[in-house]
Amino acid sequence: MRIFTFCGIELRVLSLVLGFLTLGFGLGRAQEFKPTDADAVREIYDRALVNGAAYENLRRLCKEAPARLSGSENAEKAVHLTAQMLKEAGADTVWLQPVMVPAWERGETQVLLKSPGSQRPLEAVALGGSIGTNGQWLEAEVVELPGIEALKSAPAEQIAGKIVFLNEAMEPRNVNTFASYGACGGNRVFGADEAGKKGAVAVLVRSLTLSEDHHPHTGVMIYRSELKIPGLAISTVEAGRLSQMLAASASVRVGLRLSCRDLGMKPSYNVIGELRGRQFPNEIVVAGGHLDSWDTGEGAHDDGAGCIHSIEALRILAKMPVRPKRSFRCVLFMNEENGGMGAEAYAEFAAQEQTKGILHVAAIESDRGGFTPRGFSYDAQGLGGSAAKQFLDRFSEALTPYQLQLITTEGSGADVGKLHSTGAALFGFLPDSQRYFDVHHAETDRFENVHKRELELGAAAVASLSYLLCQYGITPPTPAKK
Amino acid sequence: MRIFTFCGIELRVLSLVLGFLTLGFGLGRAQEFKPTDADAVREIYDRALVNGAAYENLRRLCKEAPARLSGSENAEKAVHLTAQMLKEAGADTVWLQPVMVPAWERGETQVLLKSPGSQRPLEAVALGGSIGTNGQWLEAEVVELPGIEALKSAPAEQIAGKIVFLNEAMEPRNVNTFASYGACGGNRVFGADEAGKKGAVAVLVRSLTLSEDHHPHTGVMIYRSELKIPGLAISTVEAGRLSQMLAASASVRVGLRLSCRDLGMKPSYNVIGELRGRQFPNEIVVAGGHLDSWDTGEGAHDDGAGCIHSIEALRILAKMPVRPKRSFRCVLFMNEENGGMGAEAYAEFAAQEQTKGILHVAAIESDRGGFTPRGFSYDAQGLGGSAAKQFLDRFSEALTPYQLQLITTEGSGADVGKLHSTGAALFGFLPDSQRYFDVHHAETDRFENVHKRELELGAAAVASLSYLLCQYGITPPTPAKK
Repeated sequence: MRIFTFCGIELRVLSLVLGFLTLGFGLGRAQEFKPTDADAVREIYDRALVNGAAYENLRRLCKEAPARLSGSENAEKAVHLTAQMLKEAGADTVWLQPVMVPAWERGETQVLLKSPGSQRPLEAVALGGSIGTNGQWLEAEVVELPGIEALKSAPAEQIAGKIVFLNEAMEPRNVNTFASYGACGGNRVFGADEAGKKGAVAVLVRSLTLSEDHHPHTGVMIYRSELKIPGLAISTVEAGRLSQMLAASASVRVGLRLSCRDLGMKPSYNVIGELRGRQFPNEIVVAGGHLDSWDTGEGAHDDGAGCIHSIEALRILAKMPVRPKRSFRCVLFMNEENGGMGAEAYAEFAAQEQTKGILHVAAIESDRGGFTPRGFSYDAQGLGGSAAKQFLDRFSEALTPYQLQLITTEGSGADVGKLHSTGAALFGFLPDSQRYFDVHHAETDRFENVHKRELELGAAAVASLSYLLCQYGITPPTPAKK
Repeated sequence: MRIFTFCGIELRVLSLVLGFLTLGFGLGRAQEFKPTDADAVREIYDRALVNGAAYENLRRLCKEAPARLSGSENAEKAVHLTAQMLKEAGADTVWLQPVMVPAWERGETQVLLKSPGSQRPLEAVALGGSIGTNGQWLEAEVVELPGIEALKSAPAEQIAGKIVFLNEAMEPRNVNTFASYGACGGNRVFGADEAGKKGAVAVLVRSLTLSEDHHPHTGVMIYRSELKIPGLAISTVEAGRLSQMLAASASVRVGLRLSCRDLGMKPSYNVIGELRGRQFPNEIVVAGGHLDSWDTGEGAHDDGAGCIHSIEALRILAKMPVRPKRSFRCVLFMNEENGGMGAEAYAEFAAQEQTKGILHVAAIESDRGGFTPRGFSYDAQGLGGSAAKQFLDRFSEALTPYQLQLITTEGSGADVGKLHSTGAALFGFLPDSQRYFDVHHAETDRFENVHKRELELGAAAVASLSYLLCQYGITPPTPAKK
């Protein structure tokens, strides 16, 4: 067990040592990583870990504005609350960017599982965007299928008039749980659409989580055809039970009444805070998460944590003894969960700015929860793709002492990804993924399930990469002419 | 979001690709990392993550034999239970190595905080090894000091007759929480000894945790002089309150009665399971954790997890289609927490074996909890030090796909570290450290606070490194002659 202490003098010695090591690698490399960068990253971590504001800000967001469904009253509260936090954090400018978002209301949910001689409530929630049942009680036999591909190839007569149960479990063998999520997300998003086309009356989807628990996990679903039927998620424990019952008996029925409804488009906002750059104010580095959340929990990990990481990054950069060279923007996107309208609006704004010489050089998305930092992903496809990779390589010496070794090509995220056309280098913050789907879109996504230090370390990681990007910028390769 | 699937055929393709990549690096490198190694590690992970035994085995250990204090009835139960688990796991041989261990009993604890006009119970536990109060009520004024160094330099007249309160908080700025633990462990281990020499009547130590909570965290203390006084840990919340009270008023007293006592030496066992190597059965690779625990919780993370990692490694290696080349031993050490007698006994046994041509080539310790794997540490000082580093470098291609990028020189651990003189390469398993001290030596170290997948991934990481060591061995450098 080695003992580290980070009092001023010892840190300075460390910096000198790092400096000499760096010089040893040759002049090209010596220009890339300076002792002052190590000092700056150390200072960022200290500010996040000692008297940081992240944890209390997340508590406020989760408790004062939980369940921040786009267009809801709580989403509106969150807009004003986080704008206030950005002012408190020291932003030079805070503004709200208007954006129209689709509003959907869950209403009441009643779901019963019926087998010969018994009936009981089923652990179920409506998927986001599902139609309701118009006050009617809807009841039918259940037919189980192993997933949306089986549904696509099933004969319509097997499906018509039935409630389709898509029982695809997330693959436990992937270390990266997001890979498993991506692989069976289609059941939730398009299951009802595919089943509706074959005459089913509703769809039950096994919750997208690796844990065996009693919490149904909601999430967006999309209708592509006009044959709309309700879509619901059931808990993984219920999925197991239901499957056993179906194997034992042909007659299992589910009855349901949902009063969810589409409320049309409503006005809302992206929340933006800016710290003006000292030397190149017209070059912008963005860090952001999404402010909306599902209504089942408090939106703590998804994506309260990402918003708070970004607000905290601004707070810390505002306190640096020397203002960073490029402008830093914290962007809290509205409507990531069920529309992406905030990301569209911000990308349009960035494109307009580009015509005025205000350039987005890089953007970081944090939308994988508030867990222990592992590293960063980057978008290898974008105009800034090779520059993004080079940047992470170049500054690995600054980041690896903070256990940020994981570098992947998983892109950035749904919001920042829309900045592709600006040529900005796009990054995603990667926290550990093991616990994320335990709480994702479920009642368990609460403030109490976020670990204080893990949240703070995430803020420090996002702030550190933001700082280095503000200091050094990225020159994206000139786009190839077509 | 990339989608991975690992059905047989696709895995084979991946292996071929990896194989070609490897060949591309030149012959020397191609010999080091074979496609079959990638297949084997993949298979180890699959066995750990799908129908693994780790989680249920940990549940049994924690629920049937919690609070496994050396020499206690529960420690005895744990010996027989884990021996049974090793048989079930497929060990060729399971045996108990007798070892005499110090036994200490907590008994009853009563602690009151008294200030003018009020008194209330204080959140406190006796430190392991503390003397009791011989049935007497012991009460004195409290004097606060910032740590053991301040205590050493304090004048005796400030200390004599008082209860010394050592209020050193763990350093929050270290990403590696073990560094912070190591830096203030001396307060707990030697605080009572130092204070006793200056005439104090008892010592209260701020719990060694980074969380602000209500759980006192126990741990070993050692008397070096005959001036023995009781030692206790108080919760971090109490430490904050007590410090405030002392700042506000000179008259804060603590009264206590402890019936803890030393029960002398008792017979116990290390539990050992062996899987005989196919080609070099006399070369031994060890993976182990410690079977004893403190009595405040269930010993789930500390070190039920490490024991279960090692048992599960044996279970998985026993199921491999081809038996590994070298012998694998799961060693569950008794008495790590308050004596290290199990480690001493096993090291002596290993030295005896060495004289018969049975050689320990490598050993891995898992004693940092059941959290998400980050990587491995190695012992750079030992005879096998450079070989250990080379081995991790050589097989980084096999391990990094499983997010095991963190490599440090933090040594192995208290048990495996005793194998130094055998010349074995010594490793430590490194899970994420952020949550460890939340539960360490406290009532919260329960099975329910271990995450199933994180535990399974730990078992897979330990099993994978064990497998590679069994296949390739390590030739330690010849010890320099003196």
